[in-house]
Amino acid sequence: MVREPRQERSRTTRRRLLEAAVECIVELGWTGTTVALIAERAGVSRGAAQHHFPTREDMVSGAVEYLAEVQIAELRSRASELPAGSARTQSIVDMLLNLYSGRMFRAALHVWVAASTDENLRATLAPLEARVGREAHRVAVELLGVNESDAGARETVQATLDLARGLGLANLLSDDTKRRAQIARQWARLLEPTLPAVQKNGTPGVTIPS
Amino acid sequence: MVREPRQERSRTTRRRLLEAAVECIVELGWTGTTVALIAERAGVSRGAAQHHFPTREDMVSGAVEYLAEVQIAELRSRASELPAGSARTQSIVDMLLNLYSGRMFRAALHVWVAASTDENLRATLAPLEARVGREAHRVAVELLGVNESDAGARETVQATLDLARGLGLANLLSDDTKRRAQIARQWARLLEPTLPAVQKNGTPGVTIPS
Repeated sequence: MVREPRQERSRTTRRRLLEAAVECIVELGWTGTTVALIAERAGVSRGAAQHHFPTREDMVSGAVEYLAEVQIAELRSRASELPAGSARTQSIVDMLLNLYSGRMFRAALHVWVAASTDENLRATLAPLEARVGREAHRVAVELLGVNESDAGARETVQATLDLARGLGLANLLSDDTKRRAQIARQWARLLEPTLPAVQKNGTPGVTIPS
Repeated sequence: MVREPRQERSRTTRRRLLEAAVECIVELGWTGTTVALIAERAGVSRGAAQHHFPTREDMVSGAVEYLAEVQIAELRSRASELPAGSARTQSIVDMLLNLYSGRMFRAALHVWVAASTDENLRATLAPLEARVGREAHRVAVELLGVNESDAGARETVQATLDLARGLGLANLLSDDTKRRAQIARQWARLLEPTLPAVQKNGTPGVTIPS
């Protein structure tokens, strides 16, 4: 019976390190972030930190992946609570266009930009970036209810996520919430006619509480 | 008659320093870039470099501004050569969505991300970023021929530029040219019905060589 709590403790330590890594990157940037500093913030010994993540690259790719998972899980859970009807498209567009306005994207941005001048970091991040991007795309396709075999549907979803990343960037140096909400309204208006009818009426099988 | 060449020489030195600053930032990142290194690359003495740009912040904001000006001038000049007719919208969308796929955006991205954890740099860049953003918006409004008093027109133009920045980001770690072209095709299709008829037929007063 010793094994379970130890595994549990190990998972908690790992999660604390990843959270601390994101905090450090957002506050200090990539060059200011070290394994020692992350360990200190997480309240974990440097040895334990290095056991989980031998290098700064390991820790940072772990953090990017962890945050992407958390965020996508949150997106799915919030999406399941959405009403059907005409407000649905707007709610989904709002959720998608807000996806990159928080600290997760901020941390990822630091790391991506550092990777553009650091070959080792790029090699670590490139496959991860592709996987995280595919997962975001899959969730957006589900939420918008599009059929990817329809002409242009795939590109519309991609454009929505690229726009979301552009809006994340616009939110980096100043609070862009108000402008982003206005763009989201217009984006929903532009998308609406291209979405299949099923989306507008909610996902089939979803029952709305009366 | 001594005055003119000296001013000319000074302008040339300034331009060489700004070009070297961009090169340095793109290759080495913000933290790797120093005034000494930029001066060396530009083949300018450190004293002369410091005469033009007392601090690294001055030089970098000069570089961001210079590149934005060059890019917008190029956009205008290319736009004046565009044909009228249905291919026009696609050509303009292509130009706008390619706007941030080059080294100018790459350099700006390094600096913006650095500014997110550096208050002095942020104070220098924030007003510049706003000015450059407004200018890009103005050119996009002209090119697309929209009337900003039409409902949603302003947001459509903003979304186009935010999408372009998101696409610039997607081009940071790998060559995204092909995917970007497909998104541009779909975006032109979505925009077309929202644009005033005048746009589709070219800017009034533009004569097409026969």
